[in-house]
Amino acid sequence: MDNANVMNALWLEDGRLSVQQVPVPQPAENEALIGLRLAGICGTDLELVEGYYPFAGVLGHEFVGDVLACPGKPELVGQRVVGEINLSCGRCEQCLNLRPTHCSRRTVLGIVNRHGVFGERFALPVKNLHPVPEGVDDETAVLTEPLAAACQCLEQLPVKPRDRVLVVGAGRLGQLIAQVLSLTGCRLSVVAKYSRQRSLLNERGIRTVEPENVPHREWDVVVEATGDTSGFELATRAIRPLGTIALKSTYRGAIPIDFSALVVDEISLVGSRCGPFAPALRLMAQSLVEPRVIVDCAYPLKSGIKAFEQARSPGALKVLLHP
Amino acid sequence: MDNANVMNALWLEDGRLSVQQVPVPQPAENEALIGLRLAGICGTDLELVEGYYPFAGVLGHEFVGDVLACPGKPELVGQRVVGEINLSCGRCEQCLNLRPTHCSRRTVLGIVNRHGVFGERFALPVKNLHPVPEGVDDETAVLTEPLAAACQCLEQLPVKPRDRVLVVGAGRLGQLIAQVLSLTGCRLSVVAKYSRQRSLLNERGIRTVEPENVPHREWDVVVEATGDTSGFELATRAIRPLGTIALKSTYRGAIPIDFSALVVDEISLVGSRCGPFAPALRLMAQSLVEPRVIVDCAYPLKSGIKAFEQARSPGALKVLLHP
Repeated sequence: MDNANVMNALWLEDGRLSVQQVPVPQPAENEALIGLRLAGICGTDLELVEGYYPFAGVLGHEFVGDVLACPGKPELVGQRVVGEINLSCGRCEQCLNLRPTHCSRRTVLGIVNRHGVFGERFALPVKNLHPVPEGVDDETAVLTEPLAAACQCLEQLPVKPRDRVLVVGAGRLGQLIAQVLSLTGCRLSVVAKYSRQRSLLNERGIRTVEPENVPHREWDVVVEATGDTSGFELATRAIRPLGTIALKSTYRGAIPIDFSALVVDEISLVGSRCGPFAPALRLMAQSLVEPRVIVDCAYPLKSGIKAFEQARSPGALKVLLHP
Repeated sequence: MDNANVMNALWLEDGRLSVQQVPVPQPAENEALIGLRLAGICGTDLELVEGYYPFAGVLGHEFVGDVLACPGKPELVGQRVVGEINLSCGRCEQCLNLRPTHCSRRTVLGIVNRHGVFGERFALPVKNLHPVPEGVDDETAVLTEPLAAACQCLEQLPVKPRDRVLVVGAGRLGQLIAQVLSLTGCRLSVVAKYSRQRSLLNERGIRTVEPENVPHREWDVVVEATGDTSGFELATRAIRPLGTIALKSTYRGAIPIDFSALVVDEISLVGSRCGPFAPALRLMAQSLVEPRVIVDCAYPLKSGIKAFEQARSPGALKVLLHP
């Protein structure tokens, strides 16, 4: 095979991750070919390797890269970009109702029926791309997707400046959620398991609290960001009557819920997933958030297996990949 | 015992319901003594008999009655009233935050540490009482409490005129919820198990739908009013991405929830309980709702056991009690 037509990529198949030489994708007419600068390993990637959802192909969905080719819009070539991960049809009921991230025919970059970004090059529709503002460095820009997911909390939850807000879990996403929520001026506390997680928050003036010291039935809004049953149980003890609990993680299997308690206390549970890129980029451009503090280290793609081991270690935050 | 000081009442103890002669309650200074006109048997009463919550005493919380004595506000004597069922302290954090139905020290009429209304007379704080507008008959007024619970759907849910709204369950509460939701002009359908339930709705121009014909992933708002796992499962199939499911029933035990599906589809679950009396009374005074269509029959208190058997029979709607 001609070397110009193959590239290194992290390939998942039958629950086995491997570094492989795969063909360079050919962009369709409405797509751009993007050269990877940096990619991030997310909890969902780890869950996919564990079999959370059957996926085979190039993994990865968090990236910053350069447009290398763009048949339909050549003026984009050379542009540094990030990209939305849901590829929507534009014609289904969800798309027509302005819910493209819920498109019923969607593919999802590196998650559902679409090769991802843990390769040297990848293709993505032009409409999914966002130029990165000049002052935003690569280690910040690569975190646009999870920062957008954090911004989704403010799209969905009734957080007001006087509210008491608790974030349960201070891993990759929990840290970004805390940074975004702190911008509201709300009374924010975060339950963080590891001392480094606590330091990162405390350095920004965000309070942390031990799980056993979380006041019960007092919090207006609780964001569950651990993905564990124990995190959800803490959330249900913490929330006040008529309060809202956001589910902001990747969960495995069914969790038994006491419906009677939900009804008697009139609690709302809100599932939350992908968020809007534009606000995330604005917050980064204004330096109102500092997502790159969660970056632990970066590995070349060909050491991807080691990078995943690192990302899976207890207390690990963001592990990056580069070409 | 002097006959003037005792009365017939329906007494629950150790899961056994009986008609007993009990002392007439003495109203405290801030309370009124009320003579029963009509009381209604609710799903929660049936669950209390089944042991849903440990309660001993006079059961019942839906009523219309006459003020017989009112030491602190004698001008109320003779007034026909209905009454809110949560007795709040006025001083706890929930009360001070305008959530008196969630008062942390509350007692609840005929449900939590407070004798109820399935007796000839009962006492209730003056602040819980609402005069019944003249044009509202007793068989309508007795349904103020469940109608208020139905109105709570509009307090908590984002129902808009163009929305597709599904009510799952057309029993006592489901019928009233459907009547209230239909006032919004939304595209309403109701899943009703029994032909009489369907007729009552169809006569009001409200559409009914068979469970197997409910379109999946299409409804903006779903109100689960069956209290059954199967009703909740239908609700989760029916709701669209980013939609809201209200839990509007009395549930027993834990129901396993697929959190991952809630997160991926960004669904909200909203527990809902007691509602505001004033809007319910306004709707009744304006004849915008017709709650009395759900009344099946009325029994004297001394036939209360038979009344409960009737209320528990499949497809039964509202069974009333009178002195």
